[in-house]
Amino acid sequence: MSRTNVKPNLDARRVTQELFTLTYGAFVAQILNDYEHVDEVNKQLDKIGYNIGVRLIDDFLARNPNVGRCHDLRETADVLAKQGFKTYLGISPSITNWSSAGDEFSLLIDGNPLTEFVELPEGQGQKLSYNQMICGAIRGALEMVQLEVECRFVQDQLKGDNATELRIKFLNKLQDALPVGED
Amino acid sequence: MSRTNVKPNLDARRVTQELFTLTYGAFVAQILNDYEHVDEVNKQLDKIGYNIGVRLIDDFLARNPNVGRCHDLRETADVLAKQGFKTYLGISPSITNWSSAGDEFSLLIDGNPLTEFVELPEGQGQKLSYNQMICGAIRGALEMVQLEVECRFVQDQLKGDNATELRIKFLNKLQDALPVGED
Repeated sequence: MSRTNVKPNLDARRVTQELFTLTYGAFVAQILNDYEHVDEVNKQLDKIGYNIGVRLIDDFLARNPNVGRCHDLRETADVLAKQGFKTYLGISPSITNWSSAGDEFSLLIDGNPLTEFVELPEGQGQKLSYNQMICGAIRGALEMVQLEVECRFVQDQLKGDNATELRIKFLNKLQDALPVGED
Repeated sequence: MSRTNVKPNLDARRVTQELFTLTYGAFVAQILNDYEHVDEVNKQLDKIGYNIGVRLIDDFLARNPNVGRCHDLRETADVLAKQGFKTYLGISPSITNWSSAGDEFSLLIDGNPLTEFVELPEGQGQKLSYNQMICGAIRGALEMVQLEVECRFVQDQLKGDNATELRIKFLNKLQDALPVGED
């Protein structure tokens, strides 16, 4: 499948959140059905997210022409939370829990549209990282702007935790190179 | 995963079409990767669509309070094309090619948002019914309002056809019964 081309009038066309949420849920249920181990499902959701992220970044930059190259991770965190999440999921997570070295932070996600109407299935399903697509998408999108990060959920309200906390760790600044993720 | 509850302010929250399109594409690519036979992939996409349709119908009826029970298939075709497609995909297919018995019609889909940026992979991929989710969703949603239909693509621009034509055939009026499709 080929790559996103940036188009005019980007805001005109939107789909309802219900359709998106139900579509995501139906596909996750399908993949959960297809794999024996939940770990493998989590890995697949991450990979799917990555493939979305590497394509979505162009669309993001076209929609947010004011966003330039970030000078540090704090700036990246800001753009991610206030513009990335806002543009695509309509929410603005709060940025918190910076590591003392300043190379790691958390996003607290409130009102995650992906998990509305969702209950994890019993048993193995409780190990499912339902939102893992988000981690993959962030990893993929940041890789396209030469930032290598690690991204994982450390708390999840779906699993009964008090908050949904996404932890992002800076790993490496990549050299400019040919875009990855092309088919 | 549990059933949609109808919420107020339904139009406020939308996601970008690009995110939806890329998410659908990434999941289809994943499932194509997981199954040996494309026929099986088409069947899975149909099933996923069905599961979406049986849940989406409540949301549809909440958004379109003016829609009552349809008295014949022509009325159903109208609601489907002008309100269903419009609400969720932002397009209004034209209704055409009625059978002489009036039990079958086509929807011509122009500007299908699902297939933007998509090219089918070579080989087996050419047999992929990429949009099959739409068939399943229509089948699922109509079943919830006691209409059993058969739904398939008879032409697809993705495969080089001149048009994308969805054929819908009335099969049966179901008796009121407990809702299907619950997990």
